[in-house]
Amino acid sequence: MISQEEAETEETVTCLHMTFYHPCQEDKMMFRCLNFRKREQVRADEMAKFGRDSNICHYNLLDTRVSRIQFSLQFYRKLYSSESCFEIKNMSKKTKLIVDKTELGYLNKIDLPWKCIICFGDYQILAEIQEGEAVDYFETHLHLAEVPILQERRLPSPQPVPESGFSSSSFSSQGKNPIEIDENES
Amino acid sequence: MISQEEAETEETVTCLHMTFYHPCQEDKMMFRCLNFRKREQVRADEMAKFGRDSNICHYNLLDTRVSRIQFSLQFYRKLYSSESCFEIKNMSKKTKLIVDKTELGYLNKIDLPWKCIICFGDYQILAEIQEGEAVDYFETHLHLAEVPILQERRLPSPQPVPESGFSSSSFSSQGKNPIEIDENES
Repeated sequence: MISQEEAETEETVTCLHMTFYHPCQEDKMMFRCLNFRKREQVRADEMAKFGRDSNICHYNLLDTRVSRIQFSLQFYRKLYSSESCFEIKNMSKKTKLIVDKTELGYLNKIDLPWKCIICFGDYQILAEIQEGEAVDYFETHLHLAEVPILQERRLPSPQPVPESGFSSSSFSSQGKNPIEIDENES
Repeated sequence: MISQEEAETEETVTCLHMTFYHPCQEDKMMFRCLNFRKREQVRADEMAKFGRDSNICHYNLLDTRVSRIQFSLQFYRKLYSSESCFEIKNMSKKTKLIVDKTELGYLNKIDLPWKCIICFGDYQILAEIQEGEAVDYFETHLHLAEVPILQERRLPSPQPVPESGFSSSSFSSQGKNPIEIDENES
């Protein structure tokens, strides 16, 4: 038996926290198959897949509006750096995937910012990366939001919006009003 | 029955041609499980995995020196563009993956140039992308090289090498002599 003093220094593990919200989450059962109780380990060489098809997606959403595979996440290490990173890829032909202000079409992918909001359809996910050292696996920790992640800033009187660029609440209108997209970005 | 005139225009399919070479390919059977006879279709949402473990890797290399998963390829579409692309990722903790002059460590990844040479251990693969329009799947077409892909330019008399930068034959020495790496790159 190895004593605590002799044991190898324990590695910290990168953990991706994902907080889910759907406006109908109380009535419907879309999140029934997600494990909100405890962290789960994912091998670094596996893709974490989210979607309707439980044969392919470990993170299974029970909703006929969700695609077979909605999106996938891969863990990787940046070239010429020791930094680990996640990349998110939209696997749905029908639904755009919005990561903060970036709209991903089918098979588009981007690096996941350390803290961001992922949207598709009526789904909202707050993703937060807690960095760790281990390279063989990472962990996911799922949470359920009780209130919407994108705050609907329904102000009592109309507020002036800056003429150029986004207002600070421009992505709060996801799913209700069309988002204002800069032409250079679309 | 739909006549040829009424049928939808047939889509061209992106095909990744991969020409394999290993110095012992005649004696040993490392390529026995690869299908060199015909093109194979891969779904766009799947990773094409190359390695020793046939339970995980469709492209199976029968060689104890090869890692369980040696490398993977994913098909994706560039953001704000209609261009399709492949990305290669080194899945081996033991062996570097060299794509032209770029050395990938474990979990490092880069875009595959439209024509490039991939090396790991004694393996050499010439990869060539033939562009197509289809986005739901791509094809792979494997070939076997009869001569080394990296030409050993064993010239009869010593040749002068430029003092700075790589000589044009600098990556011809893969696997035999150590490659000269710029410090900024390593």
